[in-house]
Amino acid sequence: MTNLKGQTIGFVGLGLMGMPMCRNLIKAGADVVATTRSPGPLKEIATAGAQTVATPRLVAEKAPIVVIMVADTLAAEAVLMGADSVHGGVGPGSLIIDMGTTAVSATRGFAARIEATGAAFVDAPVSGGTLGAEGGSLTIMAGGEELAIERARPVLEVLGSRLTHVGPVGTGQVAKAANQVIVGLNIGAVAEALMLAAHAGADPAKVREALKGGFADSRILEVHGQRMIENTFTPGGKVVTQRKDMAQALDLAAELGIEMPATRLNKELYERLIETGGGELDHSALIKALDPDWTD
Amino acid sequence: MTNLKGQTIGFVGLGLMGMPMCRNLIKAGADVVATTRSPGPLKEIATAGAQTVATPRLVAEKAPIVVIMVADTLAAEAVLMGADSVHGGVGPGSLIIDMGTTAVSATRGFAARIEATGAAFVDAPVSGGTLGAEGGSLTIMAGGEELAIERARPVLEVLGSRLTHVGPVGTGQVAKAANQVIVGLNIGAVAEALMLAAHAGADPAKVREALKGGFADSRILEVHGQRMIENTFTPGGKVVTQRKDMAQALDLAAELGIEMPATRLNKELYERLIETGGGELDHSALIKALDPDWTD
Repeated sequence: MTNLKGQTIGFVGLGLMGMPMCRNLIKAGADVVATTRSPGPLKEIATAGAQTVATPRLVAEKAPIVVIMVADTLAAEAVLMGADSVHGGVGPGSLIIDMGTTAVSATRGFAARIEATGAAFVDAPVSGGTLGAEGGSLTIMAGGEELAIERARPVLEVLGSRLTHVGPVGTGQVAKAANQVIVGLNIGAVAEALMLAAHAGADPAKVREALKGGFADSRILEVHGQRMIENTFTPGGKVVTQRKDMAQALDLAAELGIEMPATRLNKELYERLIETGGGELDHSALIKALDPDWTD
Repeated sequence: MTNLKGQTIGFVGLGLMGMPMCRNLIKAGADVVATTRSPGPLKEIATAGAQTVATPRLVAEKAPIVVIMVADTLAAEAVLMGADSVHGGVGPGSLIIDMGTTAVSATRGFAARIEATGAAFVDAPVSGGTLGAEGGSLTIMAGGEELAIERARPVLEVLGSRLTHVGPVGTGQVAKAANQVIVGLNIGAVAEALMLAAHAGADPAKVREALKGGFADSRILEVHGQRMIENTFTPGGKVVTQRKDMAQALDLAAELGIEMPATRLNKELYERLIETGGGELDHSALIKALDPDWTD
């Protein structure tokens, strides 16, 4: 593991993802300065060895590199630009790394305002869920200038096992949006296929096995297909999150003047599932929006 | 390779897939009796060592095991049930293996009529295209009774590298329909994602690289995503074939009284592409139905 001994790293946001990520930075030897809204997780990370402070602004004043891992674009805006936010604490020499899933145009706006202070900004959203966060094995899609990415790299290499520099600021979030579009639509594909198979008298588990190694094969068929077959939808990725990600991709498409018809339909199917009480299930439960009696 | 020396195997249909498959049976030592509609391929397979005859009926009279590899359900009906067809030449001891992509309900009807003569029937459609046919590395999804599958196995193991017995007669075709649904919809997913990425200012090739190994990863992202990025749509699998497969899956869904909304939308997108002259392109050209100016 990369050694961060002697480096001060700020961390904002200690949720399901942020907490294990922050712990990994401490394990790698970093002097971590952390904050988050809830007192419980703040105490927990103090026990784990972090210095805790009251506001994102104080984090940015104390740490030259600050990782942000909050729930959505609104939370990112509050933490980066609101009262006592990161923006008030940064200056030349600061590097801000937003690892949450934040809207692309908002990201470009935040980056411009951070960079106007002389600081650098990198968007580095992740894929891999809580398991990846705990194991330091996240897939990281990074946008930003080459120098900023290189400076962020030792930190990102502690948190993830695969880092791709996609392009300028915002393109990490573009890649994440593309990732979420493919995940949602491929879950929909596997759902329609397994539903068809079951109704047509085939065992969906056998069909999934038959499809392995062919063009229909994917991580989604393997992992989410299995959840559909076992009819167990403990999240993983939640339906409400997947719907939000599809809505965010469609908002971006609307800004760009392009149509994404399959993404639009997929969002509607997720909304149907939320209306019938499935919002907190794993996103593979989409098959229940297609087939309310799904029990295979 | 499995040795078929001394076994007489019939073969009907010497198209792009059938010809290399039939050659592989000859290479494995089988005494092949073949027929097909076009005189050119018939001469070609005679030169390669097969005995050629005029009709499918004659093939079935001479060979206890007959492989059928024709273009679609109509062609399968003609070869299996029409004038001078396989049906007229079979009896107890015959085994018919349909390896084309044939509609599920038609398959069950053909099987019933073949089995009424005392013969056995296996549906064993394939995935893997002409490359898989040439290399004997097809993925084979088989439906039929256990004894019939075991009797077909040595032949299927020459033609493919992966054989799954899905269930009773027809379920091989059900698995193939599921395969085609996932392939078409996942191509659509990758197309919308890469289009979004390109319009949002990211390099689609970098985005594809960033997504590798994560939940969005798949054979389709790897192979068909690459074709979209290179803007080269030499088929592979043709748009017209993909549209036919989606229509066939929707017909099956209609028979079963279930809705497949994403499959329906996907078929409409393929039809849009055919209307604008893209029918003979590779099915990954779906991105041009979404973004007519796609040149990335």
